[in-house]
Amino acid sequence: MTRWKITIEYDGGGFVGWQRQENGLSVQQTLEQAVRRFAREDVSLIAAGRTDSGVHALGQVAHFDMERQTDAATVRDALNYHCRPHPVAVLSAEAVDADFHARFAAKSRHYLYRILNRHTPPILDAGRVWHVTARLDAAAMHEAAQALIGKHDFSSFRAAACQADSPVKTLDALDVARVGAEIHLTVSARSFLHNQVRILTGTLKLVGEGKWDRDDPRRALEARDRTAAGPTAPAVGLYLTQVGY
Amino acid sequence: MTRWKITIEYDGGGFVGWQRQENGLSVQQTLEQAVRRFAREDVSLIAAGRTDSGVHALGQVAHFDMERQTDAATVRDALNYHCRPHPVAVLSAEAVDADFHARFAAKSRHYLYRILNRHTPPILDAGRVWHVTARLDAAAMHEAAQALIGKHDFSSFRAAACQADSPVKTLDALDVARVGAEIHLTVSARSFLHNQVRILTGTLKLVGEGKWDRDDPRRALEARDRTAAGPTAPAVGLYLTQVGY
Repeated sequence: MTRWKITIEYDGGGFVGWQRQENGLSVQQTLEQAVRRFAREDVSLIAAGRTDSGVHALGQVAHFDMERQTDAATVRDALNYHCRPHPVAVLSAEAVDADFHARFAAKSRHYLYRILNRHTPPILDAGRVWHVTARLDAAAMHEAAQALIGKHDFSSFRAAACQADSPVKTLDALDVARVGAEIHLTVSARSFLHNQVRILTGTLKLVGEGKWDRDDPRRALEARDRTAAGPTAPAVGLYLTQVGY
Repeated sequence: MTRWKITIEYDGGGFVGWQRQENGLSVQQTLEQAVRRFAREDVSLIAAGRTDSGVHALGQVAHFDMERQTDAATVRDALNYHCRPHPVAVLSAEAVDADFHARFAAKSRHYLYRILNRHTPPILDAGRVWHVTARLDAAAMHEAAQALIGKHDFSSFRAAACQADSPVKTLDALDVARVGAEIHLTVSARSFLHNQVRILTGTLKLVGEGKWDRDDPRRALEARDRTAAGPTAPAVGLYLTQVGY
């Protein structure tokens, strides 16, 4: 029995999310089926981040245990072969110690949120960005974001469905920058609450379009009340970029 | 009568190319139909670059003459409305002097070629990059490219079907750099021969994978013979990014 750590890219638009659901195909199911077709074994994949429907991944990490003895390149290539034609692929596979755990051993999770900030809807990046037509002030968004860094009760930035025991999380970085016609939010923490990055994005967008002052996101944080923060930004612009161990 | 200059984005994968063809939908036809639906006028669009089938544009420029009097924002929005659901959109429209000519007045054309250089096929960038699995040496490609800068007879880098009167062109810039898992070639000239950027890319790729020495692209140039250069890189990775006037 070998424990395999795999790094995964997927187009979230093609799935109901990471986790198995009754109502459609999940990334987890697609990969578990690929393992079954390759090794004729039923395995359970555990991921670092259980991304919601529509959320993309450039560097999701998951682990599973497999009896079949083989090498890392074969695991990567066989899973990619059997995942087709679904929009998911294994970037790398690595045999790890039996006590490695993709979810509990993760020391950092990194997300990118892409906003296309122009009048015309996306063409080449359709399905890859949140389209916002109002001109956003990235510097104001960045400044407002800095008051949210650190260890806080993030109840205001947490979905009602969030199952975390505690609303206290430590935000390590939250940077906002303009990149051509896009606004990029890059966010890092050991772990996140459900929808936290999307609510942070939806809130900072209010600052960017001048509807909120730069101090308002901090006030929303202090309210510890979901209704005090901004709306949840759509899944389409969110990417799980990297997981650190 | 007003002459309109429009800047256009499109996904080349959805068209037979810029120019009207018998065998499918072109970008030109899509936009001309949009003008007809909006203004009930038959117009002819002239573009800065007649991109081939599959080639994308982030900043193609075209002009046309229209009787209907209206403002620039309306031209942009009306054309976008009537182009749907095809993957083409007008980023901006501008009323210009009657002697403006999108093709003949262009002083510089800028292209980007994106190679995804990793083992695993593209997922999020499927249809947007050329997938090359052999590890490419971007520095070697860049060095080899510098010998091609300047005014030369580019017969070696010209498709057999090229209709240009002369094979002599002036290459202003040809830079190759690694950007994460991608190799980006950025190319600038006043004008290009048919398939010139794609043959330059296919030739420099041979240097990148070590099959050719850094001096070989210069030798291929000096041969003035298409068979002396490398293969034509696929259209899927090529973008017309900008046109200068």
